[in-house]
Amino acid sequence: MAIPYLQSGQVCSVLPADVATDTLQSLALFKDPHLEVIRMVLPAGKTIPPHHVNGPITIHCLAGEVAVKSEQQTYSLDAGDLQYFAGGVEHQLEAMQASVLLVSIVLIPSSAS
Amino acid sequence: MAIPYLQSGQVCSVLPADVATDTLQSLALFKDPHLEVIRMVLPAGKTIPPHHVNGPITIHCLAGEVAVKSEQQTYSLDAGDLQYFAGGVEHQLEAMQASVLLVSIVLIPSSAS
Repeated sequence: MAIPYLQSGQVCSVLPADVATDTLQSLALFKDPHLEVIRMVLPAGKTIPPHHVNGPITIHCLAGEVAVKSEQQTYSLDAGDLQYFAGGVEHQLEAMQASVLLVSIVLIPSSAS
Repeated sequence: MAIPYLQSGQVCSVLPADVATDTLQSLALFKDPHLEVIRMVLPAGKTIPPHHVNGPITIHCLAGEVAVKSEQQTYSLDAGDLQYFAGGVEHQLEAMQASVLLVSIVLIPSSAS
């Protein structure tokens, strides 16, 4: 990828104030052997189909509004809200507005989860 | 503790807009077998002495300004900035202003790091 990953100790502005949401791009901030952090930019109406990962995750809504469905429930995340899912829990997303999410994924081998 | 941990799927507002920073308290949002997420509230001038953890961490400054020192370098984190440290990297903090941090710590047994 053109933009290098954060190195240990490096600082980045997750949601630069001088960048309009509609020109912001999704970006893997870094991928460590045990942790991956992604800034996810979703246009209004964008959906992410049901999926799960082995490790726990957090979804931190930085801007906009997303609906998250999991286990027959729907949750609304507005700017500032954080949601935690344990490893293996299936979930799906829909951006109700143009939204920016910070997604942190703990990386666990299938055999260790 | 009086405030229960987030359960899988639960949503919380990390930094409630209607709560003044000076009345906000540090809070472990949840502790999963593999991940702990803490909202850390630091009054101006507060220092956290050098320490490290086995797994990778992220420090996400939500409000205020902190100085982070690690490996002979000093970094300034303002609101919106995120810093990543690999597991085992020693670091220390000083709140240059009253600050709120979201700290995510991947929990790894010493033997597996």
